[in-house]
Amino acid sequence: MVLLEMSIVPLGQGESVSQYVARCVEIIERSGLSYELHAMGTIVEGELGQVLDLMRQCIEEVAKSANRVTCTAKIDYRQGVTGGIRSKVASVREKLGRVAGPN
Amino acid sequence: MVLLEMSIVPLGQGESVSQYVARCVEIIERSGLSYELHAMGTIVEGELGQVLDLMRQCIEEVAKSANRVTCTAKIDYRQGVTGGIRSKVASVREKLGRVAGPN
Amino acid sequence: MVLLEMSIVPLGQGESVSQYVARCVEIIERSGLSYELHAMGTIVEGELGQVLDLMRQCIEEVAKSANRVTCTAKIDYRQGVTGGIRSKVASVREKLGRVAGPN
Amino acid sequence: MVLLEMSIVPLGQGESVSQYVARCVEIIERSGLSYELHAMGTIVEGELGQVLDLMRQCIEEVAKSANRVTCTAKIDYRQGVTGGIRSKVASVREKLGRVAGPN
Repeated sequence: MVLLEMSIVPLGQGESVSQYVARCVEIIERSGLSYELHAMGTIVEGELGQVLDLMRQCIEEVAKSANRVTCTAKIDYRQGVTGGIRSKVASVREKLGRVAGPN
Repeated sequence: MVLLEMSIVPLGQGESVSQYVARCVEIIERSGLSYELHAMGTIVEGELGQVLDLMRQCIEEVAKSANRVTCTAKIDYRQGVTGGIRSKVASVREKLGRVAGPN
Repeated sequence: MVLLEMSIVPLGQGESVSQYVARCVEIIERSGLSYELHAMGTIVEGELGQVLDLMRQCIEEVAKSANRVTCTAKIDYRQGVTGGIRSKVASVREKLGRVAGPN
Repeated sequence: MVLLEMSIVPLGQGESVSQYVARCVEIIERSGLSYELHAMGTIVEGELGQVLDLMRQCIEEVAKSANRVTCTAKIDYRQGVTGGIRSKVASVREKLGRVAGPN
Protein backbone atom coordinates (compact mmCIF):
# COMPACT_ATOMS: atom_id res chain seq x y z
CA MET A 1 0.00 0.00 0.00
CA VAL A 2 1.00 3.55 -0.65
CA LEU A 3 0.51 6.83 1.15
CA LEU A 4 0.07 9.77 -1.20
CA GLU A 5 0.16 13.30 0.16
CA MET A 6 -0.99 15.97 -2.25
CA SER A 7 -1.65 19.68 -2.31
CA ILE A 8 -3.30 21.30 -5.32
CA VAL A 9 -3.34 25.06 -5.84
CA PRO A 10 -4.83 27.04 -8.74
CA LEU A 11 -2.83 30.11 -9.79
CA GLY A 12 -4.44 33.45 -10.45
CA GLN A 13 -7.63 32.62 -8.51
CA GLY A 14 -7.21 34.63 -5.32
CA GLU A 15 -5.33 33.73 -2.19
CA SER A 16 -7.91 31.43 -0.58
CA VAL A 17 -7.85 27.85 -1.80
CA SER A 18 -10.14 26.05 0.67
CA GLN A 19 -13.03 25.81 -1.81
CA TYR A 20 -10.75 23.85 -4.20
CA VAL A 21 -9.54 21.58 -1.41
CA ALA A 22 -13.17 20.88 -0.49
CA ARG A 23 -13.97 19.78 -4.04
CA CYS A 24 -10.97 17.44 -3.98
CA VAL A 25 -12.02 16.00 -0.61
CA GLU A 26 -15.42 15.17 -2.09
CA ILE A 27 -13.73 13.25 -4.92
CA ILE A 28 -11.52 11.41 -2.42
CA GLU A 29 -14.50 10.52 -0.22
CA ARG A 30 -16.36 9.05 -3.18
CA SER A 31 -13.34 6.77 -3.82
CA GLY A 32 -13.85 5.08 -0.46
CA LEU A 33 -10.11 5.21 0.33
CA SER A 34 -8.83 6.20 3.78
CA TYR A 35 -7.70 9.80 3.89
CA GLU A 36 -6.64 12.53 6.28
CA LEU A 37 -6.79 16.25 5.74
CA HIS A 38 -4.17 18.43 7.44
CA ALA A 39 -3.18 22.08 7.15
CA MET A 40 -0.69 21.55 4.31
CA GLY A 41 -2.28 18.81 2.24
CA THR A 42 -4.33 15.65 2.08
CA ILE A 43 -3.04 12.11 2.66
CA VAL A 44 -4.70 9.14 0.93
CA GLU A 45 -3.92 5.45 1.34
CA GLY A 46 -4.41 2.95 -1.45
CA GLU A 47 -2.72 1.04 -4.24
CA LEU A 48 -0.26 3.09 -6.30
CA GLY A 49 -2.45 3.14 -9.41
CA GLN A 50 -5.53 4.07 -7.35
CA VAL A 51 -4.00 7.05 -5.58
CA LEU A 52 -2.39 8.40 -8.75
CA ASP A 53 -5.71 8.15 -10.57
CA LEU A 54 -7.35 10.03 -7.71
CA MET A 55 -4.69 12.76 -7.94
CA ARG A 56 -5.37 13.07 -11.67
CA GLN A 57 -9.10 13.46 -11.03
CA CYS A 58 -8.46 16.13 -8.38
CA ILE A 59 -6.10 18.12 -10.63
CA GLU A 60 -8.62 17.97 -13.49
CA GLU A 61 -11.39 19.12 -11.15
CA VAL A 62 -9.42 22.19 -10.03
CA ALA A 63 -8.38 22.86 -13.64
CA LYS A 64 -12.06 23.40 -14.49
CA SER A 65 -11.77 26.69 -12.59
CA ALA A 66 -8.24 27.79 -13.42
CA ASN A 67 -6.05 27.86 -16.48
CA ARG A 68 -2.98 26.98 -14.42
CA VAL A 69 -2.82 24.53 -11.53
CA THR A 70 0.17 23.40 -9.50
CA CYS A 71 0.30 20.21 -7.48
CA THR A 72 2.94 19.00 -5.06
CA ALA A 73 2.88 15.38 -4.03
CA LYS A 74 4.85 12.92 -1.97
CA ILE A 75 4.50 9.16 -2.09
CA ASP A 76 5.59 6.66 0.53
CA TYR A 77 5.53 3.23 -1.09
CA ARG A 78 6.13 0.53 1.47
CA GLN A 79 5.55 -3.07 0.53
CA GLY A 80 3.57 -5.15 2.98
CA VAL A 81 2.43 -2.26 5.18
CA THR A 82 -1.16 -1.06 5.51
CA GLY A 83 -2.76 1.44 7.85
CA GLY A 84 0.20 3.79 7.58
CA ILE A 85 -1.86 6.96 8.08
CA ARG A 86 -2.20 6.01 11.76
CA SER A 87 0.70 3.67 12.37
CA LYS A 88 3.48 6.05 11.26
CA VAL A 89 2.47 8.70 13.78
CA ALA A 90 2.00 6.05 16.48
CA SER A 91 5.51 4.74 15.83
CA VAL A 92 7.03 8.17 16.40
CA ARG A 93 4.98 8.71 19.54
CA GLU A 94 6.17 5.37 20.87
CA LYS A 95 9.81 6.43 20.35
CA LEU A 96 9.01 9.62 22.24
CA GLY A 97 7.63 7.53 25.10
CA ARG A 98 4.08 8.78 24.64
CA VAL A 99 0.93 6.71 24.62
CA ALA A 100 -1.27 6.91 21.56
CA GLY A 101 -3.76 9.75 21.52
CA PRO A 102 -4.66 12.95 19.75
CA ASN A 103 -1.60 14.73 18.34
CA MET B 1 3.02 33.85 10.58
CA VAL B 2 4.19 30.95 8.53
CA LEU B 3 3.34 27.27 8.37
CA LEU B 4 6.34 25.08 7.59
CA GLU B 5 5.82 21.42 6.72
CA MET B 6 8.98 19.33 6.69
CA SER B 7 10.01 15.73 6.26
CA ILE B 8 13.62 14.70 6.89
CA VAL B 9 14.98 11.33 5.79
CA PRO B 10 18.52 9.94 6.18
CA LEU B 11 19.76 7.84 3.27
CA GLY B 12 21.52 4.55 3.74
CA GLN B 13 20.22 4.05 7.30
CA GLY B 14 17.57 1.39 6.86
CA GLU B 15 13.97 1.79 5.86
CA SER B 16 12.50 2.88 9.20
CA VAL B 17 12.83 6.57 9.95
CA SER B 18 10.61 7.04 13.01
CA GLN B 19 13.56 7.31 15.40
CA TYR B 20 14.86 10.30 13.42
CA VAL B 21 11.44 11.93 13.36
CA ALA B 22 11.22 11.49 17.14
CA ARG B 23 14.52 13.34 17.62
CA CYS B 24 13.24 16.19 15.45
CA VAL B 25 9.97 16.36 17.38
CA GLU B 26 11.97 16.77 20.60
CA ILE B 27 13.82 19.75 19.08
CA ILE B 28 10.53 21.25 17.90
CA GLU B 29 8.90 20.79 21.32
CA ARG B 30 11.80 22.58 23.01
CA SER B 31 11.21 25.57 20.68
CA GLY B 32 7.76 26.10 22.19
CA LEU B 33 6.19 26.60 18.75
CA SER B 34 2.85 25.00 17.82
CA TYR B 35 3.29 21.88 15.77
CA GLU B 36 1.41 18.91 14.37
CA LEU B 37 2.79 15.54 13.39
CA HIS B 38 1.10 13.64 10.57
CA ALA B 39 1.95 10.54 8.58
CA MET B 40 3.96 12.37 5.91
CA GLY B 41 5.68 15.15 7.85
CA THR B 42 5.55 17.68 10.65
CA ILE B 43 3.92 21.12 10.51
CA VAL B 44 5.27 23.98 12.62
CA GLU B 45 3.86 27.50 12.98
CA GLY B 46 6.06 30.50 13.70
CA GLU B 47 7.87 33.43 12.16
CA LEU B 48 9.73 32.64 8.93
CA GLY B 49 13.20 32.99 10.50
CA GLN B 50 12.16 30.84 13.48
CA VAL B 51 10.80 27.91 11.49
CA LEU B 52 13.74 27.89 9.06
CA ASP B 53 16.18 27.88 11.97
CA LEU B 54 14.27 24.96 13.46
CA MET B 55 14.47 23.09 10.17
CA ARG B 56 18.24 23.69 10.09
CA GLN B 57 18.57 22.28 13.63
CA CYS B 58 16.54 19.19 12.72
CA ILE B 59 18.58 18.51 9.56
CA GLU B 60 21.82 18.87 11.52
CA GLU B 61 20.51 16.51 14.21
CA VAL B 62 19.69 13.79 11.66
CA ALA B 63 23.03 14.40 9.91
CA LYS B 64 24.79 13.31 13.12
CA SER B 65 23.67 9.77 12.22
CA ALA B 66 23.91 9.79 8.43
CA ASN B 67 26.31 11.09 5.83
CA ARG B 68 23.45 12.01 3.53
CA VAL B 69 20.12 13.53 4.51
CA THR B 70 17.24 14.69 2.33
CA CYS B 71 14.59 17.13 3.43
CA THR B 72 11.42 18.17 1.66
CA ALA B 73 9.64 21.27 2.89
CA LYS B 74 6.68 23.43 2.05
CA ILE B 75 6.02 26.90 3.40
CA ASP B 76 2.72 28.75 3.51
CA TYR B 77 3.51 32.38 4.25
CA ARG B 78 0.34 34.34 4.86
CA GLN B 79 0.54 37.81 6.26
CA GLY B 80 -1.79 38.64 9.11
CA VAL B 81 -2.97 35.07 9.74
CA THR B 82 -2.19 33.04 12.87
CA GLY B 83 -3.49 29.69 14.04
CA GLY B 84 -3.38 28.25 10.54
CA ILE B 85 -2.65 24.69 11.70
CA ARG B 86 -6.27 24.45 12.89
CA SER B 87 -8.05 27.14 10.88
CA LYS B 88 -7.10 25.85 7.42
CA VAL B 89 -8.66 22.45 8.03
CA ALA B 90 -11.70 24.07 9.66
CA SER B 91 -12.18 26.27 6.60
CA VAL B 92 -12.28 23.25 4.28
CA ARG B 93 -14.67 21.42 6.60
CA GLU B 94 -16.97 24.44 6.59
CA LYS B 95 -17.07 24.43 2.76
CA LEU B 96 -17.96 20.74 2.95
CA GLY B 97 -20.83 21.60 5.27
CA ARG B 98 -19.33 19.74 8.24
CA VAL B 99 -19.10 20.99 11.76
CA ALA B 100 -15.65 21.17 13.33
CA GLY B 101 -14.41 17.98 14.90
CA PRO B 102 -11.74 15.30 14.65
CA ASN B 103 -10.50 14.83 11.08
CA MET C 1 0.35 19.90 -21.47
CA VAL C 2 1.85 19.24 -18.10
CA LEU C 3 5.33 19.43 -16.65
CA LEU C 4 5.99 16.75 -14.03
CA GLU C 5 9.11 16.94 -11.89
CA MET C 6 9.87 13.82 -9.91
CA SER C 7 12.55 12.47 -7.65
CA ILE C 8 12.47 8.83 -6.51
CA VAL C 9 14.62 7.53 -3.67
CA PRO C 10 14.79 4.00 -2.23
CA LEU C 11 15.27 3.83 1.54
CA GLY C 12 17.75 1.50 3.16
CA GLN C 13 19.79 1.00 -0.04
CA GLY C 14 22.89 3.07 0.61
CA GLU C 15 23.41 6.75 0.10
CA SER C 16 24.03 6.77 -3.65
CA VAL C 17 20.91 6.80 -5.79
CA SER C 18 22.26 7.51 -9.30
CA GLN C 19 21.82 3.90 -10.45
CA TYR C 20 18.09 4.12 -9.67
CA VAL C 21 17.78 7.46 -11.45
CA ALA C 22 19.47 5.92 -14.50
CA ARG C 23 16.91 3.12 -14.61
CA CYS C 24 14.10 5.68 -14.46
CA VAL C 25 15.69 7.77 -17.23
CA GLU C 26 15.71 4.66 -19.45
CA ILE C 27 11.96 4.22 -18.87
CA ILE C 28 11.35 7.89 -19.63
CA GLU C 29 13.42 7.75 -22.83
CA ARG C 30 11.42 4.77 -24.05
CA SER C 31 8.23 6.81 -23.62
CA GLY C 32 9.40 9.29 -26.24
CA LEU C 33 8.36 12.27 -24.11
CA SER C 34 10.59 15.34 -23.72
CA TYR C 35 12.53 15.31 -20.47
CA GLU C 36 15.33 17.06 -18.65
CA LEU C 37 17.51 15.70 -15.90
CA HIS C 38 18.82 18.10 -13.26
CA ALA C 39 20.61 17.66 -9.95
CA MET C 40 17.44 17.38 -7.87
CA GLY C 41 15.07 15.48 -10.14
CA THR C 42 13.78 14.81 -13.63
CA ILE C 43 11.26 16.92 -15.55
CA VAL C 44 8.97 15.31 -18.13
CA GLU C 45 6.45 17.00 -20.42
CA GLY C 46 3.31 15.26 -21.61
CA GLU C 47 -0.39 14.84 -21.03
CA LEU C 48 -1.39 14.49 -17.36
CA GLY C 49 -2.34 10.81 -17.68
CA GLN C 50 0.89 10.03 -19.58
CA VAL C 51 3.28 11.60 -17.08
CA LEU C 52 1.51 10.06 -14.08
CA ASP C 53 1.66 6.64 -15.71
CA LEU C 54 5.38 7.17 -16.31
CA MET C 55 5.86 8.10 -12.65
CA ARG C 56 4.05 4.91 -11.62
CA GLN C 57 6.34 2.82 -13.85
CA CYS C 58 9.45 4.48 -12.41
CA ILE C 59 8.32 3.95 -8.80
CA GLU C 60 7.56 0.29 -9.53
CA GLU C 61 10.97 -0.13 -11.19
CA VAL C 62 12.81 1.24 -8.13
CA ALA C 63 10.57 -0.84 -5.84
CA LYS C 64 12.00 -3.98 -7.44
CA SER C 65 15.20 -3.22 -5.52
CA ALA C 66 13.86 -1.76 -2.29
CA ASN C 67 11.07 -2.52 0.11
CA ARG C 68 10.43 1.15 0.71
CA VAL C 69 10.54 3.93 -1.89
CA THR C 70 9.77 7.62 -1.52
CA CYS C 71 8.87 9.90 -4.38
CA THR C 72 8.42 13.66 -4.40
CA ALA C 73 6.70 15.23 -7.36
CA LYS C 74 5.51 18.57 -8.58
CA ILE C 75 3.11 19.17 -11.43
CA ASP C 76 2.62 22.36 -13.43
CA TYR C 77 -0.60 21.98 -15.38
CA ARG C 78 -1.05 24.86 -17.79
CA GLN C 79 -3.73 24.68 -20.42
CA GLY C 80 -2.73 25.60 -23.94
CA VAL C 81 1.02 25.76 -23.27
CA THR C 82 3.57 23.35 -24.74
CA GLY C 83 7.36 23.40 -24.70
CA GLY C 84 7.44 24.59 -21.10
CA ILE C 85 10.71 22.82 -20.27
CA ARG C 86 12.53 25.45 -22.34
CA SER C 87 10.09 28.36 -22.44
CA LYS C 88 9.76 28.81 -18.67
CA VAL C 89 13.50 29.33 -18.20
CA ALA C 90 13.62 31.59 -21.27
CA SER C 91 10.83 33.73 -19.83
CA VAL C 92 12.78 34.31 -16.61
CA ARG C 93 15.97 35.10 -18.52
CA GLU C 94 14.08 37.65 -20.59
CA LYS C 95 12.86 39.40 -17.44
CA LEU C 96 16.48 39.47 -16.26
CA GLY C 97 17.46 41.14 -19.53
CA ARG C 98 19.57 38.20 -20.68
CA VAL C 99 19.57 36.65 -24.11
CA ALA C 100 18.77 32.96 -24.38
CA GLY C 101 21.70 30.64 -23.86
CA PRO C 102 23.11 28.01 -21.54
CA ASN C 103 21.95 28.48 -17.95
CA MET D 1 27.75 21.32 1.17
CA VAL D 2 24.07 21.34 0.50
CA LEU D 3 21.93 21.55 -2.60
CA LEU D 4 18.70 23.48 -2.06
CA GLU D 5 16.01 23.40 -4.71
CA MET D 6 13.24 25.94 -4.25
CA SER D 7 10.18 27.19 -6.04
CA ILE D 8 8.32 30.25 -4.76
CA VAL D 9 4.84 31.17 -5.98
CA PRO D 10 2.64 34.10 -4.91
CA LEU D 11 -1.08 33.31 -4.71
CA GLY D 12 -3.71 35.60 -6.14
CA GLN D 13 -1.27 37.44 -8.46
CA GLY D 14 -2.12 36.04 -11.86
CA GLU D 15 -0.93 32.85 -13.46
CA SER D 16 2.49 34.01 -14.68
CA VAL D 17 5.22 33.88 -12.07
CA SER D 18 8.40 34.50 -14.11
CA GLN D 19 8.78 38.09 -12.87
CA TYR D 20 8.95 36.78 -9.27
CA VAL D 21 11.46 34.10 -10.20
CA ALA D 22 13.61 36.78 -11.87
CA ARG D 23 13.67 38.85 -8.67
CA CYS D 24 14.75 35.76 -6.71
CA VAL D 25 17.48 34.96 -9.25
CA GLU D 26 18.87 38.48 -8.77
CA ILE D 27 19.07 37.88 -5.00
CA ILE D 28 20.76 34.52 -5.56
CA GLU D 29 23.29 36.03 -8.01
CA ARG D 30 24.25 38.70 -5.49
CA SER D 31 25.02 35.93 -2.97
CA GLY D 32 27.80 34.62 -5.20
CA LEU D 33 26.66 31.00 -4.70
CA SER D 34 26.50 28.54 -7.59
CA TYR D 35 22.97 28.11 -8.88
CA GLU D 36 21.00 26.60 -11.71
CA LEU D 37 17.58 27.62 -12.97
CA HIS D 38 15.33 24.95 -14.46
CA ALA D 39 11.69 24.82 -15.50
CA MET D 40 10.38 23.78 -12.08
CA GLY D 41 12.65 25.64 -9.66
CA THR D 42 16.09 26.94 -8.84
CA ILE D 43 18.97 24.93 -7.33
CA VAL D 44 21.57 26.65 -5.14
CA GLU D 45 24.70 25.13 -3.61
CA GLY D 46 26.17 26.37 -0.34
CA GLU D 47 26.36 25.77 3.38
CA LEU D 48 23.03 24.84 5.02
CA GLY D 49 22.72 28.16 6.89
CA GLN D 50 23.60 30.13 3.74
CA VAL D 51 21.05 28.52 1.46
CA LEU D 52 18.26 28.70 4.05
CA ASP D 53 18.99 32.40 4.59
CA LEU D 54 18.83 32.92 0.84
CA MET D 55 15.47 31.14 0.71
CA ARG D 56 14.20 33.42 3.48
CA GLN D 57 15.30 36.50 1.53
CA CYS D 58 13.59 35.25 -1.64
CA ILE D 59 10.32 34.49 0.15
CA GLU D 60 10.35 37.93 1.78
CA GLU D 61 11.05 39.56 -1.59
CA VAL D 62 8.04 37.86 -3.22
CA ALA D 63 5.92 38.65 -0.15
CA LYS D 64 6.39 42.37 -0.88
CA SER D 65 4.03 41.84 -3.82
CA ALA D 66 1.60 39.28 -2.43
CA ASN D 67 -0.21 38.70 0.81
CA ARG D 68 0.22 34.95 0.48
CA VAL D 69 3.26 33.11 -0.81
CA THR D 70 3.93 29.38 -1.04
CA CYS D 71 7.35 27.83 -1.30
CA THR D 72 8.31 24.24 -1.93
CA ALA D 73 11.88 23.21 -1.21
CA LYS D 74 14.08 20.14 -1.22
CA ILE D 75 17.46 19.85 0.42
CA ASP D 76 20.18 17.31 -0.34
CA TYR D 77 22.69 17.49 2.50
CA ARG D 78 25.72 15.37 1.75
CA GLN D 79 28.78 15.67 3.91
CA GLY D 80 32.11 15.98 2.12
CA VAL D 81 30.64 16.53 -1.36
CA THR D 82 30.88 19.78 -3.33
CA GLY D 83 29.99 20.58 -6.94
CA GLY D 84 26.85 18.48 -6.76
CA ILE D 85 24.91 20.64 -9.23
CA ARG D 86 27.05 19.18 -12.02
CA SER D 87 28.35 15.93 -10.54
CA LYS D 88 24.96 14.39 -9.74
CA VAL D 89 23.78 14.62 -13.34
CA ALA D 90 27.16 13.41 -14.59
CA SER D 91 26.94 10.37 -12.32
CA VAL D 92 23.57 9.36 -13.79
CA ARG D 93 24.83 9.90 -17.34
CA GLU D 94 27.81 7.68 -16.60
CA LYS D 95 25.49 4.88 -15.43
CA LEU D 96 23.57 5.33 -18.68
CA GLY D 97 26.82 4.90 -20.61
CA ARG D 98 26.75 8.46 -21.97
CA VAL D 99 29.64 10.86 -22.10
CA ALA D 100 29.21 14.20 -20.36
CA GLY D 101 27.52 16.91 -22.38
CA PRO D 102 24.37 18.99 -22.63
CA ASN D 103 21.32 17.19 -21.25
